[in-house]
Amino acid sequence: MPDLQRVVQEIAEEMRARPDRGDVATYIPELAGADPASFGIAVVGADGEVAAAGDCDLPFSIQSVSKVFTLTLALGKVGDRLWRRVGREPSGSPFNSIVQLEAEQGIPRNPFINAGAIAVTDIILSGHQPREALGEIVRFMQFLADDASIFIDEAVAASEQRTGFRNRALANYMKSFGVLENPVDHTLGVYFHHCAIAMSCRQLAMAGRFLAHNGRNPESGLSVVSPERARRINAVMLTCGHYDGSGEFAYRVGLPGKSGVGGGILAIAPGRASIAVWSPGLDASGNSHLGRLALEALTQRLGWSVFGG
Amino acid sequence: MPDLQRVVQEIAEEMRARPDRGDVATYIPELAGADPASFGIAVVGADGEVAAAGDCDLPFSIQSVSKVFTLTLALGKVGDRLWRRVGREPSGSPFNSIVQLEAEQGIPRNPFINAGAIAVTDIILSGHQPREALGEIVRFMQFLADDASIFIDEAVAASEQRTGFRNRALANYMKSFGVLENPVDHTLGVYFHHCAIAMSCRQLAMAGRFLAHNGRNPESGLSVVSPERARRINAVMLTCGHYDGSGEFAYRVGLPGKSGVGGGILAIAPGRASIAVWSPGLDASGNSHLGRLALEALTQRLGWSVFGG
Amino acid sequence: MPDLQRVVQEIAEEMRARPDRGDVATYIPELAGADPASFGIAVVGADGEVAAAGDCDLPFSIQSVSKVFTLTLALGKVGDRLWRRVGREPSGSPFNSIVQLEAEQGIPRNPFINAGAIAVTDIILSGHQPREALGEIVRFMQFLADDASIFIDEAVAASEQRTGFRNRALANYMKSFGVLENPVDHTLGVYFHHCAIAMSCRQLAMAGRFLAHNGRNPESGLSVVSPERARRINAVMLTCGHYDGSGEFAYRVGLPGKSGVGGGILAIAPGRASIAVWSPGLDASGNSHLGRLALEALTQRLGWSVFGG
Amino acid sequence: MPDLQRVVQEIAEEMRARPDRGDVATYIPELAGADPASFGIAVVGADGEVAAAGDCDLPFSIQSVSKVFTLTLALGKVGDRLWRRVGREPSGSPFNSIVQLEAEQGIPRNPFINAGAIAVTDIILSGHQPREALGEIVRFMQFLADDASIFIDEAVAASEQRTGFRNRALANYMKSFGVLENPVDHTLGVYFHHCAIAMSCRQLAMAGRFLAHNGRNPESGLSVVSPERARRINAVMLTCGHYDGSGEFAYRVGLPGKSGVGGGILAIAPGRASIAVWSPGLDASGNSHLGRLALEALTQRLGWSVFGG
Repeated sequence: MPDLQRVVQEIAEEMRARPDRGDVATYIPELAGADPASFGIAVVGADGEVAAAGDCDLPFSIQSVSKVFTLTLALGKVGDRLWRRVGREPSGSPFNSIVQLEAEQGIPRNPFINAGAIAVTDIILSGHQPREALGEIVRFMQFLADDASIFIDEAVAASEQRTGFRNRALANYMKSFGVLENPVDHTLGVYFHHCAIAMSCRQLAMAGRFLAHNGRNPESGLSVVSPERARRINAVMLTCGHYDGSGEFAYRVGLPGKSGVGGGILAIAPGRASIAVWSPGLDASGNSHLGRLALEALTQRLGWSVFGG
Repeated sequence: MPDLQRVVQEIAEEMRARPDRGDVATYIPELAGADPASFGIAVVGADGEVAAAGDCDLPFSIQSVSKVFTLTLALGKVGDRLWRRVGREPSGSPFNSIVQLEAEQGIPRNPFINAGAIAVTDIILSGHQPREALGEIVRFMQFLADDASIFIDEAVAASEQRTGFRNRALANYMKSFGVLENPVDHTLGVYFHHCAIAMSCRQLAMAGRFLAHNGRNPESGLSVVSPERARRINAVMLTCGHYDGSGEFAYRVGLPGKSGVGGGILAIAPGRASIAVWSPGLDASGNSHLGRLALEALTQRLGWSVFGG
Repeated sequence: MPDLQRVVQEIAEEMRARPDRGDVATYIPELAGADPASFGIAVVGADGEVAAAGDCDLPFSIQSVSKVFTLTLALGKVGDRLWRRVGREPSGSPFNSIVQLEAEQGIPRNPFINAGAIAVTDIILSGHQPREALGEIVRFMQFLADDASIFIDEAVAASEQRTGFRNRALANYMKSFGVLENPVDHTLGVYFHHCAIAMSCRQLAMAGRFLAHNGRNPESGLSVVSPERARRINAVMLTCGHYDGSGEFAYRVGLPGKSGVGGGILAIAPGRASIAVWSPGLDASGNSHLGRLALEALTQRLGWSVFGG
Repeated sequence: MPDLQRVVQEIAEEMRARPDRGDVATYIPELAGADPASFGIAVVGADGEVAAAGDCDLPFSIQSVSKVFTLTLALGKVGDRLWRRVGREPSGSPFNSIVQLEAEQGIPRNPFINAGAIAVTDIILSGHQPREALGEIVRFMQFLADDASIFIDEAVAASEQRTGFRNRALANYMKSFGVLENPVDHTLGVYFHHCAIAMSCRQLAMAGRFLAHNGRNPESGLSVVSPERARRINAVMLTCGHYDGSGEFAYRVGLPGKSGVGGGILAIAPGRASIAVWSPGLDASGNSHLGRLALEALTQRLGWSVFGG
């Protein structure tokens, strides 16, 4: 895959040179110190080869990218019953909006806005202690990425525990409608911690492989989810993965993707590759500015958009 | 393409046998008389062959499916300046919601909700008389479908002219923000008429070919739009093509698609085929019930979902 | 009533001296030319004496102040059945908001927001030609004010006919829910014209007398409405008379009142007086800036607040 | 005051006889056991005489009626600076709506919806321990009512502590905007406890006297607040005291009033009397059904409406 490595390298260089880098998220104090100059990219192809460039091995806070994996895990536990507690429509609202919850009886619009991801976390937690549930999530990430070194950044988790009032509002609000089963503090504890998982682009791209390959690890051949479920998770990523910037991401990049306020984006080119990019500066919708530009360049040069060559 | 014809035939038979057919739209009186037992399907492949079954040659009111073509036409006129007057994010709201317009200064969320399509029509109208603009739209449809017999059902247009108070509200509301340039009655006249275009599944699938083939007519090789624009129109169809049922359509069908309250859906399998289905019974979001089921069956059997084989 | 005349005189002088005068409404072009230096006040006491000062005899466009009188007239026609089509709760929204209508099936929150007043006008219109309905409204105003010289400013009415897109949106929206019975253009024609009635402060204060005196003209003793109805109209004025500035008006002035974007305010001191003030500069909620300050000074000096001496 | 006692007696008997009694609130489990047959009324006139009937000496949970007194206390502490953190407009929304908070940067619309009252409690709490703040509130109530036996019902407070998820959501939401200064749990602890104050109608009517008499205790002559502040608190009660039923209360009763989900209402007839009624059955807006009917009968028979004799 020499071509792919060259394209990835070129894009990393172009991104480094750009003067516009977005603004680093400040609402989680611990993330505010990230270096806006950082940029990493990693692409894992169908044959298992990895093309990577820039800060591709630097761990960053994956934040909401973790929601793809908790959704996968929760679907594994309760199957389609999950959709009784969470919708799967784009919200047309910012990531932390509470308005939609009031109109829809506490049922979050989709699993990728904060409220929805908290409800998904609550499903994983049910029947377990918070520590167990969190262990399960981390081990699932390590298994998918084939890398036991993936860890939770406790300083980030603690920072959000102290300041996550809006998420606490969302969780209590859902609890008032009976949408959460567990004590709010337990559910939020697990949520804040899985958002604080630290991974490099390389690790994240590895973890996403099953979504690019019909639910299977393309090297080991092991099935993580059914092909249908992989397609459906990709569909939810495409319509809902970037909050109220989801339409824009589909329009420009043309791939299912999930962003996090840490500046990471996981994108899936079905049948082709799992891609992770990272740059901490965000655009107005809270998605990585350079990350999106890099993915736009990548799909354009390789003809990888799901919407046509 | 014998296999495709067999699959299409099977699906048509399965759909005919289903007892659940949704409810025929009644808010446009002229449409209320449609027969819920109708079902048609047509698929035009890359080589130009057509697989079709059921009521595939019966003309129906394409209604909002026309918005794909008016968007294409308007982009051809003003290019990306179009996006100053219309957004491209999913709305999270029903097709005729006015709430979003108040929050966003009269700019419709996307070109496929009614308000957005009215704004797009206003762009096509600018500098022309309504009759000319309408002629241009109809000729564009005839050109794309390679069929000069496509016509406007005047009874349907007149019916909506008399009863379309909600669309009149949307148009006046946008006009109050300066989003429409032309007299409201002119813009709505053109809008109601292009929604009243009557086409069969076969004609509609023919008209959609350019979206499946990088902007070109695959037989003549003539370019309708650039490959990038074709991709982008597909992206907007996927995220916004089914109102507040867009997430559900992506989740179940996995193709860009645009529905109309007449019961038609145009779906695009990029690189593969342009597909039209029709059945007048609608689900709660106003999209054809059997139409969606038929498309779900089709993509599943052929592995055509953009989200993975 | 020498004291009252002195207080009124003082207030008129204080208001003239103030540098802050608010902004003249520009959304009705014909009103934009009003002189922000204008200030008028007139108070009609229980004994029929009038204290007046400033531009108290200059006619101005009463605009939404007319809604008090159309409500009175419509209640006379259909009684409490009126409340099936219009609510009587404060809206918490600007005068021309359409959001509330969507949430509440086209039923306007109260008769003093634009949508509500349009619905009230529709009630008056039913069974009549627009010209007749309008004649009835004007004659009612002339009767109440005991002044046959009150007229409609046709230039203002025509100006709003040409530009009132937002009101046209509200009317069509209600029509789509069946809340309006008459053709939208007829109802709006009457609405725009009664808003364009021109009156002086003196005439307006005279017209409001029945609300201060249990529904009767205190001089002639003629009953206009029952005492209960007079109280109830006052109640709706207090809670809803100033759009999303109604709480502020009650807090500062402490009287039932109705404002118009022409800069007029009618206020009622029950058992004591009918008061009209006018100054065209508006505050952020669209209510006369000096008008409210003048009423605040008046109630404070005379101890006329309904909330305590 | 023999007449008043007779009127009050008559009303109590009429209320007892009515078959329609509304529904007892169930969302605070401890309140669900209240007897819907209960009805009490007490009126304290300007001369200090008390007319009372029914269950006028039975303590009930005053719930949101306490918000009148915490507002008074907080205004005493920070004066008009209070209005930087809380608005004073009717909300047009249910008591526990969170939608308005999102649109207005966490600033509650008025001090009588739950969010506003929590913000007011936070002001009282600042600089104190929760226990001290609560003590101050209870002593203030005892002082106003001239009755040291007023107490907090700990079972009710504990019940709401366990189940008040929606209030916890509101508080965390405001905290995320910096509207609350203290730890959310402290503020809510004080809030839940002052809502759980138990008082009889007689005690409550005594406590409200200062609002009927220009801020003074009419017997001792001691000033609680300035006359202007008393008027203004009354104004806020009238426009905002009954959530989205405030317009209805003003329309039917015509007095400033504040209701609580325990079924109590405090109403003020300025210059005349302080009135408390209690009946646990609620109407759709969460206000005492018989309580409002009793007040409507009272003002009608005595001509006490502020909107006219």
